[in-house]
Amino acid sequence: MPLPPGPFTGRTLSDLARDLRDGRVTSVALVERALGAVAALDPALNAFVTVDAAGALAAARRADEELAAGADRGPLHGLPVAVKDLIMVAGLPATMGSRHFANHVPGSDAVCVTRLREAGAVIVGKTTTHEFAYGPTGDRSANGPSRNPRDPARMSGGSSGGSAAAVAAGIVPLAIGTDTGGSVRIPAALCGIAGFKPAYGAIPAGGVFPLSRSLDHVGVMAGDAAGCLLAYRCLGGDVARAEPGAVRVGWLDPAGLSDGDVRVADAVRAAADAGIGGMEEVKLPEGFAQEVRETYTAIQSAETAAVHAERLARAPELFEAEVLERLRVAAELPGWRYVRALEARDQLAEAAEALFGRHDVLALPAAPIVAPLLGQRELELDGRPVAVRPALLSLTSPWNVFGLPALTVPAGTVAGLPVGLQLVARPGAEARLFAVAAGVTTGA
Amino acid sequence: MPLPPGPFTGRTLSDLARDLRDGRVTSVALVERALGAVAALDPALNAFVTVDAAGALAAARRADEELAAGADRGPLHGLPVAVKDLIMVAGLPATMGSRHFANHVPGSDAVCVTRLREAGAVIVGKTTTHEFAYGPTGDRSANGPSRNPRDPARMSGGSSGGSAAAVAAGIVPLAIGTDTGGSVRIPAALCGIAGFKPAYGAIPAGGVFPLSRSLDHVGVMAGDAAGCLLAYRCLGGDVARAEPGAVRVGWLDPAGLSDGDVRVADAVRAAADAGIGGMEEVKLPEGFAQEVRETYTAIQSAETAAVHAERLARAPELFEAEVLERLRVAAELPGWRYVRALEARDQLAEAAEALFGRHDVLALPAAPIVAPLLGQRELELDGRPVAVRPALLSLTSPWNVFGLPALTVPAGTVAGLPVGLQLVARPGAEARLFAVAAGVTTGA
Repeated sequence: MPLPPGPFTGRTLSDLARDLRDGRVTSVALVERALGAVAALDPALNAFVTVDAAGALAAARRADEELAAGADRGPLHGLPVAVKDLIMVAGLPATMGSRHFANHVPGSDAVCVTRLREAGAVIVGKTTTHEFAYGPTGDRSANGPSRNPRDPARMSGGSSGGSAAAVAAGIVPLAIGTDTGGSVRIPAALCGIAGFKPAYGAIPAGGVFPLSRSLDHVGVMAGDAAGCLLAYRCLGGDVARAEPGAVRVGWLDPAGLSDGDVRVADAVRAAADAGIGGMEEVKLPEGFAQEVRETYTAIQSAETAAVHAERLARAPELFEAEVLERLRVAAELPGWRYVRALEARDQLAEAAEALFGRHDVLALPAAPIVAPLLGQRELELDGRPVAVRPALLSLTSPWNVFGLPALTVPAGTVAGLPVGLQLVARPGAEARLFAVAAGVTTGA
Repeated sequence: MPLPPGPFTGRTLSDLARDLRDGRVTSVALVERALGAVAALDPALNAFVTVDAAGALAAARRADEELAAGADRGPLHGLPVAVKDLIMVAGLPATMGSRHFANHVPGSDAVCVTRLREAGAVIVGKTTTHEFAYGPTGDRSANGPSRNPRDPARMSGGSSGGSAAAVAAGIVPLAIGTDTGGSVRIPAALCGIAGFKPAYGAIPAGGVFPLSRSLDHVGVMAGDAAGCLLAYRCLGGDVARAEPGAVRVGWLDPAGLSDGDVRVADAVRAAADAGIGGMEEVKLPEGFAQEVRETYTAIQSAETAAVHAERLARAPELFEAEVLERLRVAAELPGWRYVRALEARDQLAEAAEALFGRHDVLALPAAPIVAPLLGQRELELDGRPVAVRPALLSLTSPWNVFGLPALTVPAGTVAGLPVGLQLVARPGAEARLFAVAAGVTTGA
């Protein structure tokens, strides 16, 4: 059964910014609504690990005073925001979803948090992450699984599951997450909101606990693509303001990348056709999907095992069991396979570049399935067994390998559960990405 | 017993170039001398795998015709040169010292070979390499060990052992090699000639069979440093022609990097003091030596195993036994250790940079021991056991990790066997390196 709407359900960041400036609401009032919604809705969601009521209210008062004094920090000024628990906020616990960091309180802000504060945003709390962000399901964390607002028996997706659930439930209008193989886009799609993973490095990763350094991205999640664009710009993202001309969009059949639910592919395709229209089919080169998958897995395994080697040796029992098992496998990947994967990445990047030869933006689902039940690791689709984890990652992780900007926007539902349309572009073409998304979200 | 001198013993590249232009000799005559010396001396040395008498004589005739017609290609024009068998020369076998490539004949030249030809050099033949360049001893190759001209019972050092032996025996005045952990400088030092490993990438590695891509360098070997400089410039190296002012040279005590023969350290220090003088002692940071060694080993292992994985799986029996054993160990290095090594390299590079804070050039031995006997893997020094392979690599490989230009010049003998003084600088300071070397070689 879906949760009732929260105070920010259906409210865009622009609406809220206008209300604040028109004096119809204060930052303190917005933060009080967010805190009230945490109390009312979060017991069913487990989206939050830490709520900083006192800090948030103090920041909201300052935001109101600044606005009253004519010091306007821009569109995020006074708006409540939630931050994934993998991202450092000075003075608030950062558990990384792990018992290894049960008592960890960082002394300084991550770069993206500093930028949020400079933009006037008010940090309400820290959101549940899959342990160390190592999983797209969002259901293995020291503080328990985050749950899907459309059906709390189902997973939020992950690893930024708490951030997605908090925005989707209308508890906050904006959240920050990280995306190494889809960890912003997958939960955004499964929960029915928009999520944007910028180009590699576009939002600095300083102060973010690493999962896999060459694949890690900081991203933003909001109710719609316009909210993501607005937040991305406030975080330092450079997106051209001139209207792009005609944007050529190609449709990438998800069946070329992954097994999945044909109803999801059809629903997303229908939303794309309605909002975009005139898409040509884009074909992946022979072998591309498998090579990208293997390349992603090798890079991610070696880099993740490098982050956790000491913990794995000294205190393996503190990891959640599934995460521990995956880390142990990752730690055994031979070095030469990682070397090969780095070489393959360079070669595959040329093939990926060629996908954009005739198109500015590629469209495909963000995930090939709807949100599975919590803990579910295998589905049956048309009598075929489908492994949940690789399926969830299959359509998003290729763009991490190449560091391409990728956005997911809500694209309707299948059996009452949200699906997401993913749009992918080359770095520098973000304005086209968001222009296409604007058409889809209007049309959806 | 040392070999008798060859036709190019004691002859500098400049001398030979002048003789050619003064009409005292022809390129054909020089090549005939080289071919005669191969016949006379190489049976004791095994420096050559392939000799291209017909091709070399034809090229020499063209070189003479060009010079006669006033078309002067510069200082290497008409001079015989030998090329390591890991570097592709169109139409000549390239065995890489391995039975895996017993019948391999490349169709095109390596970039450095193209440049040699454009500079008018005449390629006489291919020189023995340790199998796949994977060893600093030079005594494990499908065509047998290369031997030291000062004592053919001893190793040449490697992996560019044949190139060093050919120059040291006076068979050719110039040879090309590769250097991944010291493979130009170690055999140059052990055989008593000069060897220069430029900055990483300064001579392109295209057409060179890889050992470890991020550590591989193409280098040059000649009787003296001036010959290396001249050849390096002809191969595209950019070295300022203005006389550098006072050059600050620091002495790095080899005991800080490796166990070794104190007589070698003393002899090299004496040669440096005589030729340079006024050196300050440079101290390595605590732990630096061990961290660099581990970093080098991890990077080299993973990258080398990546080159050979298929051969290791499909035809291990074709590798020489010691090389096979080392490859098997290398293939087991976990990926996360390679990731850590890449991170450590970045951190250590800052410490290495700091070594040059007060000095333009660092001076130290090229190798901490004199040439061991062929096949010898352990020495006893003052009652301590010393492993030959790590000792040979200990003073050269750190500079491969950071891609720094490094030169070895003859610095006298210990018990009748040559020792080398190594000079290391930052990229861009090559002119200073060679200015210091000029003083040493005059003084030695």
